[in-house]
Amino acid sequence: MAVTFAGGFRAGTAACGIKAFTAGAKAIPTEQKSDLCVVLSERACDTGGVFTTNKVKSASVVIDHLHLQHNRVRALVINSGNANACTGAQGFKDALLMAKLTADNLDLDPDQVLVSSTGVIGRYMPMQAVRSGIEAACADLDAAHGDDAARAIMTTDSVPKTSSLEVELSAGRVKIGGMCKGSGMIHPNMATMLAYITTDAAVAPGLMAAMVKPVADRSFNQVSVDGDSSTNDTFLLLANGDAGNRPITAGSPDAAALQAGIVEVAQIMARSIARDGEGATKLITVRVGGAASDSEASLAARSVASSSLVKTAIHGGDPNWGRIVCALGYSGAEMAIDRLHLSIGGMVVFERGGGMEVDLGAVRHAFEQPEIEIVATLGIGDGIAEAWGCDLSEEYVRINADYTT
Amino acid sequence: MAVTFAGGFRAGTAACGIKAFTAGAKAIPTEQKSDLCVVLSERACDTGGVFTTNKVKSASVVIDHLHLQHNRVRALVINSGNANACTGAQGFKDALLMAKLTADNLDLDPDQVLVSSTGVIGRYMPMQAVRSGIEAACADLDAAHGDDAARAIMTTDSVPKTSSLEVELSAGRVKIGGMCKGSGMIHPNMATMLAYITTDAAVAPGLMAAMVKPVADRSFNQVSVDGDSSTNDTFLLLANGDAGNRPITAGSPDAAALQAGIVEVAQIMARSIARDGEGATKLITVRVGGAASDSEASLAARSVASSSLVKTAIHGGDPNWGRIVCALGYSGAEMAIDRLHLSIGGMVVFERGGGMEVDLGAVRHAFEQPEIEIVATLGIGDGIAEAWGCDLSEEYVRINADYTT
Repeated sequence: MAVTFAGGFRAGTAACGIKAFTAGAKAIPTEQKSDLCVVLSERACDTGGVFTTNKVKSASVVIDHLHLQHNRVRALVINSGNANACTGAQGFKDALLMAKLTADNLDLDPDQVLVSSTGVIGRYMPMQAVRSGIEAACADLDAAHGDDAARAIMTTDSVPKTSSLEVELSAGRVKIGGMCKGSGMIHPNMATMLAYITTDAAVAPGLMAAMVKPVADRSFNQVSVDGDSSTNDTFLLLANGDAGNRPITAGSPDAAALQAGIVEVAQIMARSIARDGEGATKLITVRVGGAASDSEASLAARSVASSSLVKTAIHGGDPNWGRIVCALGYSGAEMAIDRLHLSIGGMVVFERGGGMEVDLGAVRHAFEQPEIEIVATLGIGDGIAEAWGCDLSEEYVRINADYTT
Repeated sequence: MAVTFAGGFRAGTAACGIKAFTAGAKAIPTEQKSDLCVVLSERACDTGGVFTTNKVKSASVVIDHLHLQHNRVRALVINSGNANACTGAQGFKDALLMAKLTADNLDLDPDQVLVSSTGVIGRYMPMQAVRSGIEAACADLDAAHGDDAARAIMTTDSVPKTSSLEVELSAGRVKIGGMCKGSGMIHPNMATMLAYITTDAAVAPGLMAAMVKPVADRSFNQVSVDGDSSTNDTFLLLANGDAGNRPITAGSPDAAALQAGIVEVAQIMARSIARDGEGATKLITVRVGGAASDSEASLAARSVASSSLVKTAIHGGDPNWGRIVCALGYSGAEMAIDRLHLSIGGMVVFERGGGMEVDLGAVRHAFEQPEIEIVATLGIGDGIAEAWGCDLSEEYVRINADYTT
């Protein structure tokens, strides 16, 4: 049940016509998908967040930065249909008002609420609709509504994306759950990624802020290429202590076990984003080993997973492994071409500086599977990493050629 | 007449079936396009070259680096149909042999010959075919064959790409001509770009080596995104002194005038590469001003011109200017969002931190033209730059999904 899987979290949703009103409608369409959700924790959470590196940031991202400084978050309000980005001073007022309206409905202070938005850029929020949506969502709060919340944040996503896990710690058993939205496009320039992971673990203050970046680096950042981030990208990690365990402190074995559990939940969601790329038909997993460092391995894996030529070759079932070698070559990672080892679907296609005699038909067959694994060893050191992507299809172009209209 | 426009240069071509033999054919197909050319200068040239930054380099690129150190180049041999990359020790032998065979035919030393290759990666050169092609091309040398040479180097290009110009210097009148091949793709990972500019100006030794990088930065590098380079990218600049002028020295007004002329020839060719993107229907020109520096302006302009979401929006005639603002935001260039000014086809769509009330129909109309100009002012400093790209169409996917087969 996603963000309400862990104890002490409830969610509520509403269908308030944000996309329609943003586009100029005068009334809510009769067939309206839910487009706003509120998540409430029974108690203040230790919270960590990472946000877009884009110099143009949504007003909601700026507000969240401020509110996180107090580290006493109790609620999230998230809307789809309008990104509240490039909206100037009015945008900040609207984001602040979203926090305040949610706080008023739940008897909190506004800085206990974080705000996220996703949708079209450069249009003002239809605040009349948002106001009624927040009221309705707050009246709908229930521990059983986690999956509804995952649906309310979808934009071009074809499926809701959630994950959950229980972890046994020496301090006791804790629950971890999450939801996210996003699409693993060619370069996810503007496919805003929103992700939320909640746990009922009790933790020392600041632990979630310390964990959120390493978790993102091993999951969402391996789908959403660094530097190509949208105006709204957000990943939040909340721990509310509802499990009643002895608080977990940084550096302890329990902290490591909790982080491993959070990484697993995050990776499952990251893979579901890659798999749900716009027009995608296949999930591509790229594993890189033998790099100078883990971060160089990340670079190399992302480079292959985001190469439009690798993506189109795989879409066409074309065993053109030269494109993979090329993408490794321009990734910036050190590699020893004479020790480079490359396999596709378990078949070695390149080693000792040259291509292997392979059964091209078998490689083509591997490319035609719904999941494709590419494994590269760079021959330099011990660094490893994984990245995920999808194939690039004609359907991608059709979806993105006509998004606002 | 392209590379033979300047005095003292001749070119010859041959159709030797390199692509067919690479793919395993036993005989040259009857309908064979020309796929090899030789360019000969009457005298030794001052030569500058810039090459791919990919860690995986074609054997020909490595050989050229070595031969350039002697700075006495007299001939080029260039083939399409096989990239001679990822071919190990055999690849180096083959590239050296191409230089030697050309030198033998023309009574030169091998280090006076530069070699370029473009085509499929990871297959050995069919040297029997190449040997006969070099012989035929050397027998075909003629000052009238410059346009034929431009056709011989094409791969997925739909048109040959050439440019020429005469420049009046205080030292006298000189000619500049060039040819190139390449396609302005989403990210030109592997669309190898080869470009050659020849001039009959007499110059002090080393002047072309000093000019080649600044020229590339204002032309070809604004199409071919840095870091996303293929294994074979090459840009060579040759001056043979045939005009008989007083040699031009670095830092002189004549050097500046010569460089300006070379930049103009290079920019015309760079734009023709962008326009000839695989499946492209439109040329996108992005002009950025008001940046902290020219190089930050370059970053920003390239970021917009290479954004797949901007490209698809323009393909669909969708006036989604938020994607342009987003691409500027993740480019890495400093910008002041409250002073950002953005226009599409002369219409202002964004200023003072927010979108303008614009006639979306008129913006859509601008996007539907064969040439689209996007102008952004970042509000920071005086840096300016230009970049070029093409729209992203379903046809791009079809071409690249099935390239080797």
